[in-house]
Amino acid sequence: MLYFIAMNVIIAVDVGGTQLRAASYLPEQNLPLKLERTATRHPQASPLEQLCHLIEKVWPIEHQVTAISIAAPGPLNPFEGIIFTAPNIPGWENLPIRNILQEKFQVPVLLGNDANLAALAEWQFGAGQGHHHLIYMTVSTGIGSGIIVEDHLLLGSQGLAAELGHVTVLPNGPRCGCGQEGHLEAVASGTAIAKWVKQELDHGVLSDLSSLSEITARHIAEVARQGDQLAKAAMDRAGMFIGYALADFVHIFNPTAIIIGGGVSRSGDLLMEPMKKALAKRVLAQHYLDNLTLTNASLGDEVGLLGALVLARSAGCS
Amino acid sequence: MLYFIAMNVIIAVDVGGTQLRAASYLPEQNLPLKLERTATRHPQASPLEQLCHLIEKVWPIEHQVTAISIAAPGPLNPFEGIIFTAPNIPGWENLPIRNILQEKFQVPVLLGNDANLAALAEWQFGAGQGHHHLIYMTVSTGIGSGIIVEDHLLLGSQGLAAELGHVTVLPNGPRCGCGQEGHLEAVASGTAIAKWVKQELDHGVLSDLSSLSEITARHIAEVARQGDQLAKAAMDRAGMFIGYALADFVHIFNPTAIIIGGGVSRSGDLLMEPMKKALAKRVLAQHYLDNLTLTNASLGDEVGLLGALVLARSAGCS
Repeated sequence: MLYFIAMNVIIAVDVGGTQLRAASYLPEQNLPLKLERTATRHPQASPLEQLCHLIEKVWPIEHQVTAISIAAPGPLNPFEGIIFTAPNIPGWENLPIRNILQEKFQVPVLLGNDANLAALAEWQFGAGQGHHHLIYMTVSTGIGSGIIVEDHLLLGSQGLAAELGHVTVLPNGPRCGCGQEGHLEAVASGTAIAKWVKQELDHGVLSDLSSLSEITARHIAEVARQGDQLAKAAMDRAGMFIGYALADFVHIFNPTAIIIGGGVSRSGDLLMEPMKKALAKRVLAQHYLDNLTLTNASLGDEVGLLGALVLARSAGCS
Repeated sequence: MLYFIAMNVIIAVDVGGTQLRAASYLPEQNLPLKLERTATRHPQASPLEQLCHLIEKVWPIEHQVTAISIAAPGPLNPFEGIIFTAPNIPGWENLPIRNILQEKFQVPVLLGNDANLAALAEWQFGAGQGHHHLIYMTVSTGIGSGIIVEDHLLLGSQGLAAELGHVTVLPNGPRCGCGQEGHLEAVASGTAIAKWVKQELDHGVLSDLSSLSEITARHIAEVARQGDQLAKAAMDRAGMFIGYALADFVHIFNPTAIIIGGGVSRSGDLLMEPMKKALAKRVLAQHYLDNLTLTNASLGDEVGLLGALVLARSAGCS
């Protein structure tokens, strides 16, 4: 005779401006029991309705759900479970997502910033394993980050830490998405790289990129790999600015690992080499580089889900 | 009949380039039992001999010394008790001060960076009481700092955190004491303020300061208070750069308090007002300013000794 044992399950959710993901996890498992994706925007459903529907799809009726843990973009208060604003998700302003979902699903709900949770995931399961002090930075449309200090995620008083993309690296530089000027994100994100290339093309610089109808950081990396000078200069410039900023961050945090994730980091050495060079040039003393690893993130697209999973488990949900 | 009870005593030491201080403290007392000062340099004695002599002077023969705790400048490894370099103290290169003093005095010896320990002291006894996340910055000859994250001093992997004075605020800016360019310390420390004024005077700018034989940040603050335009501009400029940098640090740490200490901060509003204005201008969202206090340090010259005392007590010495 065979008995079925109901187990505790955590549902992790990763909220993106384009896509929502949800997955359910059994105890001590990092491979999901169920994993579903859907578009954030839908003609007949709000993003919140899409999200609830997705959670229902991964809800395992044969097991007990102990928590829903959400990775979300934008400034948010993880302690109170409120999303202040979510870039590209209309209507999500001061959204008390924790209370809404707790009421609907009747289980504890946790919330964290997606870059912070990605740092947690890389520290627990990825390139940061074994490190006690690390900086995680994701370079994609924007630049996000999360920092581990003595095996703890740096949250700050309201959970608004640690926005390494929003430090000034070029006074009077390009306008940032946040409204300020010259932030790292405005100079070295995927969006910023593409913008800089378009400006150079407008100024008459010759490049294979001029024949493309759409220019993104991914196209630029591809063309750079084929030897295009402008494309290479664009990646060099972004890597350099990130490396200079990393020198500052290394003086502040004295970590043993810097982990670079996000879409633009998939360009590999094109970004990492100028970054390493700039960091080494600007560091104030060799001691800071002793035992310091600068490496690519090792988790893929599921990093947000895994981070939400770590958040729930570290909060005692299993 | 009266019995004398021998008590446990901590000896705190504050090492400066000009002056050494030492004090002995009874349990739960923050007023020293004995306090002595001496010059760091002496024609017949090395700085280390001066230090040992000073420790002996505050050593209470009737009590039991449980620890010697040292606040020292410059990069150092607090975990191994090694001072890498101490600015203005010749011969202190890779000095294993902990082992040397432990061997000589036969008690446990602790070591910490002076700005880090000042942050601990302000958090425990000063302007930072009750805060769990704070940034302490000392603006004097250089710019040092210490950061409290969730009631813990941020040390980093080797104890080299947190050098907020050594982040780039002005690319291609003035040379910093550390050899790099455009660091906050090179732009807004007392030394940097005086240097900028001298350059302006050399360029023919009129000011009451031109009649002085020696120009220091203290003189500049005095003359600024009397309405001198150049002196005022110099303080404004330094305050502005510190405020801009603080916006970055607030995005990184999301603290509830920023505490400004050091000699230059004694100029009061001359520095604090432009600093506050610049911080408010550059912060990326109002949330970061909610519940944030920007204030002067409240402990005086004994902040280093008190920090060393907190270090020893938090390590379990009483």
